[in-house]
Amino acid sequence: MRLVVIGGVAAGMSAAARARRTDRSLEITVLEKGNAVSYGACGLPYYLEGRVPSLEALVSYPAEHFRQERDIDVRTGSQAVAIRHPERKVILENGERVPYDRLVLATGAKPHPGLIAGGAAPHVFTLQTLDDARRIQQFLEARKPAAAAIVGAGYIGLEVAEVLRAAGVGQVTVFEASANVLGRQDHELTDLVRRQLERFRIELRAETRIAPLDDVRADMVVVAAGFRPSVKLAEDAGIELGRTGAIRVTDRMETNLHGVYAAGDCTETQHLVTGRPVWLPLGTTANKTGRVAGANAAGARERFPGVCGTSIVRVCGLSIGLTGLSECQAHKEGFDAVSARIQGLDKPGYFDGRPVSIQLVADRRSRRLLGACITAEAGIWGDPGVSGRTGIAATAIARGMCVDEMEHLDLPYAPPFAPVWDPMLIAARETAKLLD
Amino acid sequence: MRLVVIGGVAAGMSAAARARRTDRSLEITVLEKGNAVSYGACGLPYYLEGRVPSLEALVSYPAEHFRQERDIDVRTGSQAVAIRHPERKVILENGERVPYDRLVLATGAKPHPGLIAGGAAPHVFTLQTLDDARRIQQFLEARKPAAAAIVGAGYIGLEVAEVLRAAGVGQVTVFEASANVLGRQDHELTDLVRRQLERFRIELRAETRIAPLDDVRADMVVVAAGFRPSVKLAEDAGIELGRTGAIRVTDRMETNLHGVYAAGDCTETQHLVTGRPVWLPLGTTANKTGRVAGANAAGARERFPGVCGTSIVRVCGLSIGLTGLSECQAHKEGFDAVSARIQGLDKPGYFDGRPVSIQLVADRRSRRLLGACITAEAGIWGDPGVSGRTGIAATAIARGMCVDEMEHLDLPYAPPFAPVWDPMLIAARETAKLLD
Repeated sequence: MRLVVIGGVAAGMSAAARARRTDRSLEITVLEKGNAVSYGACGLPYYLEGRVPSLEALVSYPAEHFRQERDIDVRTGSQAVAIRHPERKVILENGERVPYDRLVLATGAKPHPGLIAGGAAPHVFTLQTLDDARRIQQFLEARKPAAAAIVGAGYIGLEVAEVLRAAGVGQVTVFEASANVLGRQDHELTDLVRRQLERFRIELRAETRIAPLDDVRADMVVVAAGFRPSVKLAEDAGIELGRTGAIRVTDRMETNLHGVYAAGDCTETQHLVTGRPVWLPLGTTANKTGRVAGANAAGARERFPGVCGTSIVRVCGLSIGLTGLSECQAHKEGFDAVSARIQGLDKPGYFDGRPVSIQLVADRRSRRLLGACITAEAGIWGDPGVSGRTGIAATAIARGMCVDEMEHLDLPYAPPFAPVWDPMLIAARETAKLLD
Repeated sequence: MRLVVIGGVAAGMSAAARARRTDRSLEITVLEKGNAVSYGACGLPYYLEGRVPSLEALVSYPAEHFRQERDIDVRTGSQAVAIRHPERKVILENGERVPYDRLVLATGAKPHPGLIAGGAAPHVFTLQTLDDARRIQQFLEARKPAAAAIVGAGYIGLEVAEVLRAAGVGQVTVFEASANVLGRQDHELTDLVRRQLERFRIELRAETRIAPLDDVRADMVVVAAGFRPSVKLAEDAGIELGRTGAIRVTDRMETNLHGVYAAGDCTETQHLVTGRPVWLPLGTTANKTGRVAGANAAGARERFPGVCGTSIVRVCGLSIGLTGLSECQAHKEGFDAVSARIQGLDKPGYFDGRPVSIQLVADRRSRRLLGACITAEAGIWGDPGVSGRTGIAATAIARGMCVDEMEHLDLPYAPPFAPVWDPMLIAARETAKLLD
């Protein structure tokens, strides 16, 4: 039995590794168009920041490891150009045909080609691969740009803006086509982020659609917007896409073609709040769905339940944790949503308790928690309190918990850790009050 | 309508304040035998540590605040000695009779009298009240004791041991009657704590039953063991106790006497894992049950669902979060329990990720999470990562989540906050493997 995996970053290598553990006799081949596999792309901004000592530190395992230790035939520099499913063959750019019995597509996502029409220009960058990071680093060192334009105020755009500013770029402007940052329809959050960026002299221009080679007066442009799932290969092979434009999969991560699975940023997943398919490309989901796809492709039966839309980001020292829906998004999804925001302390005042802001969104009818936005100022390290409380909200959402029940959650309390009324409990209580 | 609350610390003042918000016309009287109300007893060790600048900083609101701002008649120095329920009267030590229509008992807990038989001795202490802390502080300054004995290795005993050692007491010994620390039947945890204490030259003597005036060679003795619910007043009035020895209450916090409620350390609560009553006196539960008792006594209808047995403590720089049952406790409760322990990093290695240890306990039959023990070295501040992950486990336990579902929880990921596979997810996966 031959398993071929197309794409060797997070989802692809998770699938291959899991398939190997599921079936030791499987022949496994990974086709990766780039020259590295299994790297933590989410760490790239922190390489530019100087925190990650080398790009090699972002590589979980080198290709050699998979070849020698796990008997996985990893082929870097191998661009798949077609899938002939009736013949069970993947066609490579060099004409080679790679046969398979089972196939996992992990082709990822990339910015819309229109946005990087000027991508050949030496001052226009994306930040997806180790090579991208290397190019930006070299450009920064050699050219010392005075002004930079970032296209897109998603988490990559905001992280890169901060990094460039810290690297001494005097004028950094973030252009965002929508009215909101971080893909969250939440104007309060957008205002908060805007103010934080301004403190670091980074300008946010929302509702400003821009192509990188428009007349932007900048010495460098980083395109971190307009990402779309890479689905051409799939589409050409007759694999169905969902209404999000990403590959539609079952909860076993199988496509409409029997024996062909897909995982990671090229697929849509089910949103646990709305029950509808969404396209939310994130590293952690890529790893999880890759594992499930790999297990099932190798003969196991596992399912991926879906996502809550959880994300977390550090923006100029502000920690922002998000999960579920914003109030605006909840209304658009048909919920009769209310939200409450509280300011609390993450520990007792006498234990250096610091402010944390929690907004919860709940459904008036079912009293269920629909979403949470948790923020705190925390410096460069990221605030694990924001992370922990976001995780608590995500766990509650996954189980359809009511805010009344959340108010009585038995969360840990001791002075070095939390106040006797954890801010999560206070936020749940204030939200529940709005429902009475 | 007259509401009388007996006891004015966490549960009592929560009940009184909530009753006031529920019914503005209620006459509310709080009878407190001590001279202060509404203080954070959990902060007392941190006062001795020097972190809390003054004992006043531990008082949430002074008695005056309740009198003037909330129209609550707070009577300090008022010891209730009997309840005459047929006449609806509380009898005070001075003979005064205080009439009530509704009553809330929040009489707390105290060490077993046998344990503090020598309590009159000037070198024997407990640490429950502001006065207790003041006495210890004065004794430390005036007498500079060279050797201290702590009776009890619960969280108060361990916190006090650390504080005394840091205050320069050369020889600190913790005596514990049971085989385990922190009231958790978990010998691995006990070994871990023992080693941590030893690094700070604190000796732990488990399975050593001791009364403070036994021939312990110590210049001071702190009794932090043998706590029992203070139920004499209730018992004498015909209020039923549960099998734990604490007051039995409904989920409305009502006792067997109509109109008489109880809350806090004098009551038992339902354990959400076993469904059985337990006596787990903790400040956070006291606040929650006090609020529910106060609301219901004032005519609302609220319920308290129960507890997971969550606690967290910092012991000599080790952060320990516990929730649910240990494997041993789970077996005793009749579960076919398994447990897995993993060592992970709380963030990526390149982001100064530090070791965190997670042990999960699951039920083989239902695959439900039954308990968690999370530990990390984190210095004096307490590790919010331990706190957050303990809260995630507590939320999962409250909802009877399976470890398989936990493995796919949509927890937040970004390099400043967590690794792409949060250690909670890895622990859930390793535990699930044991069930197959």
